[in-house]
Amino acid sequence: MLEGIEISEGEEREDFVGFKVKPKFIAYPKSEEEVVKIVNYARETKTPIVVWGAGTSLSGHLMCDGCILVDMSKYMNKILEINDIDWYARVQPGVNLELLQRKVEEKGFFFPPDPASFFLCTVGGATANSSGGMRGVKYGTFRDWVLALKVVLPNGKIVKIGEPLRKNRGGYDLVHLFVGSEGTLGIITEIWLRLMPLPKRKTYTVLAYMNSLEDTAETIVELRRKRILPEIAEYIDLEVIKALNKHLNANLKESEGGILIISVEEDYLEDLKAILKGKEYEIAEGEEAERIYSIRAQSAIALRAESNYMFVEDIVVPVSKLVEAIKRLKEVEKKYNIKMPVISHIGDGNLHPNIILDDPSKAEVIFEEVARIAIDLGGSVSGEHGIGVQKAKLLAEQIVKHNGEDVLKIMKGIKDLIDPYGIMNPNKYVELAYKMWEKK
Amino acid sequence: MLEGIEISEGEEREDFVGFKVKPKFIAYPKSEEEVVKIVNYARETKTPIVVWGAGTSLSGHLMCDGCILVDMSKYMNKILEINDIDWYARVQPGVNLELLQRKVEEKGFFFPPDPASFFLCTVGGATANSSGGMRGVKYGTFRDWVLALKVVLPNGKIVKIGEPLRKNRGGYDLVHLFVGSEGTLGIITEIWLRLMPLPKRKTYTVLAYMNSLEDTAETIVELRRKRILPEIAEYIDLEVIKALNKHLNANLKESEGGILIISVEEDYLEDLKAILKGKEYEIAEGEEAERIYSIRAQSAIALRAESNYMFVEDIVVPVSKLVEAIKRLKEVEKKYNIKMPVISHIGDGNLHPNIILDDPSKAEVIFEEVARIAIDLGGSVSGEHGIGVQKAKLLAEQIVKHNGEDVLKIMKGIKDLIDPYGIMNPNKYVELAYKMWEKK
Repeated sequence: MLEGIEISEGEEREDFVGFKVKPKFIAYPKSEEEVVKIVNYARETKTPIVVWGAGTSLSGHLMCDGCILVDMSKYMNKILEINDIDWYARVQPGVNLELLQRKVEEKGFFFPPDPASFFLCTVGGATANSSGGMRGVKYGTFRDWVLALKVVLPNGKIVKIGEPLRKNRGGYDLVHLFVGSEGTLGIITEIWLRLMPLPKRKTYTVLAYMNSLEDTAETIVELRRKRILPEIAEYIDLEVIKALNKHLNANLKESEGGILIISVEEDYLEDLKAILKGKEYEIAEGEEAERIYSIRAQSAIALRAESNYMFVEDIVVPVSKLVEAIKRLKEVEKKYNIKMPVISHIGDGNLHPNIILDDPSKAEVIFEEVARIAIDLGGSVSGEHGIGVQKAKLLAEQIVKHNGEDVLKIMKGIKDLIDPYGIMNPNKYVELAYKMWEKK
Repeated sequence: MLEGIEISEGEEREDFVGFKVKPKFIAYPKSEEEVVKIVNYARETKTPIVVWGAGTSLSGHLMCDGCILVDMSKYMNKILEINDIDWYARVQPGVNLELLQRKVEEKGFFFPPDPASFFLCTVGGATANSSGGMRGVKYGTFRDWVLALKVVLPNGKIVKIGEPLRKNRGGYDLVHLFVGSEGTLGIITEIWLRLMPLPKRKTYTVLAYMNSLEDTAETIVELRRKRILPEIAEYIDLEVIKALNKHLNANLKESEGGILIISVEEDYLEDLKAILKGKEYEIAEGEEAERIYSIRAQSAIALRAESNYMFVEDIVVPVSKLVEAIKRLKEVEKKYNIKMPVISHIGDGNLHPNIILDDPSKAEVIFEEVARIAIDLGGSVSGEHGIGVQKAKLLAEQIVKHNGEDVLKIMKGIKDLIDPYGIMNPNKYVELAYKMWEKK
């Protein structure tokens, strides 16, 4: 059944944060037709399928024992089209995101979503995970930029989901259902991404040396009150700065209260300066600004180099609840006598407290306590890293508390409707959340 | 079962384009709890439910015989909150869109979607239909601006769909499934809409007197090639201009080849002028620009006043196929010896040819022929008006041709999953499309 398809047996992998992947075999498809063959084989032999892009998953999306690991990065990694009238890029899932961004920029286009792993990750992985990034505060996440998809469904049929049109009322919107479905509904084989022209405005990057994380949250609230929409608004605390200076020669000022890295269009610069009045800040432009963002993107890597065990959290809270969330994070630190250095897309309320431990046995309980701060405050247990296996229980809690049990049932119903065979990345995400809730 | 709920019996209605609504009775709920009672009654008595906002539907979404018509505009019409830190408006479905836009503007916010019926329609109706408008070319349609919903499901449970957060990875994205579901999945009782700050940049509105519709399409293609993203790019032809002058004293120049009304931010003005070189144009600002847009919004009304029968089409094609689409529209005009005056959101490929007939018996065949131009060219049979009953057959054709039969099956499966009782606006949209395809 799999004749002609490149297969590798006996190979194990580990994702970016150490989750183990022990496949029955790894398949390297060269075409959609080969993907169909693999899906048919999986269905007939009842073997789970997990799709691998670059392995930069952070929540255990890729864990598997005995699955077929479908590696998209080896062959299905082409940019198929950059359409300069209809303003979309059509790509295969295995293409590297940074490469795509460079290619569209050469043609005068901008593709905003920029997960910190952009230099490593694939477009397919970022689509399946609906990944975010620094530009999320203004431009949203992958779900806001995917126009259409080609997908091999669990039944082996090739379908197109959506249309590469800005406006389309052609039936229920399934595009957003598949974007962020974490490989549980089908295998993405082609993606149409919306492009916009490169912005014309000059932007300024301001490095503000803050008094504390709370102070930073208050500054963000003030920006909101003044109706200032930044391009980017990132925060790193002193621990993170030290790690960056040590491991990446970042040459950042070791500001006690951390640094707010904020980029605004020229129209907003004077308003921003007024808000930062009394604080020390510097303005970076051009290559220096680029360097700052590149360093920021590597914060988690630098921090990990400092620790034995590190668990990356990814909570999001309403901006109006940021100050309260931070207060509660401090209480968790105190209670367990630990440090949780913070990296944050603070402009949109997305916090990454990094739980660093010598004794990982306490990890789960701390991890859950942090996530419950988000649930309590009307936020979400994941802003951009996704659910995988790691957050399934918390997702169930959140949905039942915020949305209602019926919402979890509908999600599980959709999984069963599209994948009645249970072969697409099974026992994770929505399905696992549902099972954990049902057992309770 | 319905005690306490205001009911009116024996009343009939007609929607904006004349589709008849002959309900068993009309209910005017005052609260979510009353909506639950109505839904429970409908389920137990197997009576269809149709929700009425302002009746501005254009494709027969509201048609019904013997249904319960739930009128949201009488009581459930409040703006509940305009959150100026979290940047959302939370509203009941019956609130008028123009009122909401005025209220958010008073607070320094901007809510972009602007269907031509904005001064009449409700936010609930525009959400259920995922309506578009003139600003769609830059800002998209309702689906791009709805953060979360409260919904009474067909089983009578109240749920919240999504979260009012810019970033959220809390399970499958059901928000986009409900937005644009045309009342077939549940009754929307509350809506969180994303707001952005009022733009700071000065914009210029240019009225360019074009040689023809083809010439306009070529100009739009040229804008795309030059990477110019307009705020608005509308087209009206000579017939429309004449109707506006006659019925609304519009005082527009009766340009043989129609008018391109295009708005750009100041950064793009010189580029635009270069593209329009050799054409006659005027620049409008401030109140005069406002007046032009207000007149443009009433084009269909003016045109209808000129005709006995008018069928408003709503096709969208890729911008790269606009010239070809226009050529084919002319062929249809010739073939049937009719006039189809064009109103168009031409910047995003959304064309509204208006089929004007003395003899309405030919209407359906012409209507279908026009829609098939969109299907042939990789477009969609609806950009923003929705499917209702009128376009169900065409929707089925489009999905089977572009997306695959399985996509239609999945959509029907979702309808059955969420509304197994078949009470929510039954026999329309996806369900009707599926039935028509199955019969073939």
